[in-house]
Amino acid sequence: MTLVFHERVGHEGRRPSPFSWRIRYALAHKGLLDTPAVEVRPTRFADRPAIEALSGQRFVPVIEHAGRVVHDSWAIACHLEDAFPDRPSLFGGTVGRGLTRQLNLWCDGVLMAAVRPILVADFPAVLEPGDRAYYRSSREAMFGCTLEHYAADRPAHLARLRDVVAPLEALLAEQPWVAGAAPAYADHVVFSVFQYARLGCTAELLAPGTALAAWRARMIALHDGLGDRFPGYPTP
Amino acid sequence: MTLVFHERVGHEGRRPSPFSWRIRYALAHKGLLDTPAVEVRPTRFADRPAIEALSGQRFVPVIEHAGRVVHDSWAIACHLEDAFPDRPSLFGGTVGRGLTRQLNLWCDGVLMAAVRPILVADFPAVLEPGDRAYYRSSREAMFGCTLEHYAADRPAHLARLRDVVAPLEALLAEQPWVAGAAPAYADHVVFSVFQYARLGCTAELLAPGTALAAWRARMIALHDGLGDRFPGYPTP
Repeated sequence: MTLVFHERVGHEGRRPSPFSWRIRYALAHKGLLDTPAVEVRPTRFADRPAIEALSGQRFVPVIEHAGRVVHDSWAIACHLEDAFPDRPSLFGGTVGRGLTRQLNLWCDGVLMAAVRPILVADFPAVLEPGDRAYYRSSREAMFGCTLEHYAADRPAHLARLRDVVAPLEALLAEQPWVAGAAPAYADHVVFSVFQYARLGCTAELLAPGTALAAWRARMIALHDGLGDRFPGYPTP
Repeated sequence: MTLVFHERVGHEGRRPSPFSWRIRYALAHKGLLDTPAVEVRPTRFADRPAIEALSGQRFVPVIEHAGRVVHDSWAIACHLEDAFPDRPSLFGGTVGRGLTRQLNLWCDGVLMAAVRPILVADFPAVLEPGDRAYYRSSREAMFGCTLEHYAADRPAHLARLRDVVAPLEALLAEQPWVAGAAPAYADHVVFSVFQYARLGCTAELLAPGTALAAWRARMIALHDGLGDRFPGYPTP
């Protein structure tokens, strides 16, 4: 039975959404991506009415599988783990699942908040031209200021990010993957945030020579270079 | 063969060290604490020369087991997991071990830094009187100011802590233990920091009704109330 993966798409086929990247990597980890078992449906912000009609809410990723419609990347990852128990594990057991959830909440609450001001003013260029006005107006309403004002002091935001990722830098100086000896969904989640920035703005978040930069390169290379399959930030 | 656990001891038998609390809970989790398999040796700051002679460094916890001397709480936890593989697991597998290390580094780097200014001026009272001058002078050299100056704005430090623990609060609103369905070493590590503050100062870090406060109460109650076995902060 085909699994339908509704994934955010941007300008000229770009993939700008961290939450969709997590699920793309999770599907590859399970050996399902690029097989007839999965159909990818690229989704713009402008496709919101169809996503709402399908899932009862506006955000992607959404999957349709086994008679269910599942939204929210964490719920999708849990569904994939439980629906494909004989494929490589995303969590490595119940403790791994519990602790992956811990890291997932930290990424969404803390890491994303540190990354967002670095990229947000650059980000419209990676979206479909028709999606850009919606992105700008919705985010400016959320921030209470223009994207440019919110993003103004990039050096300070980059310095703040270095503090936030210090425990991850220490971790990856000790072990090759966030999940230990081999990559797992915890890696997908952390990577998705750096991938979001790598493809979504002109700033380099990770200094050469850091353990995080080396790990990110290993993540990009997984699954035949999955992290480089789509266009990067547009050159002027 | 007996395992010797060198554990920090404070005034009138108090247990003030978060790093020793982790190992105390890990030993209980493995079913070894309070059995003839483990001998606990309480250790004061003033016992530093003996600890240095034994382990080549000054900090406790230290264990002696199977012909080895192991220091550093993470290394000790890994030793216990590997030396007692048939006892309840501290990590729940390789992914769990990798992610527990991630949380451990975050706790030591971020959570401890948020908790330290809340308790540090109160903390000497829980130490042996003979250890207090060393504690004060070593910490004041580290902070570059008096303990009282470092700790001055407790409401601001408590507000900062609430931000830092927001992802843990969200996690424990979803699942009963940090490690998911059952407690594991990840819980021991996070708990050790709150226990350090609970026994080491007059401030209450966790508001009643929070998921973290309820989880902390469950952690205290484990292993026949292990978290309440020693005296609390001295009453004036």
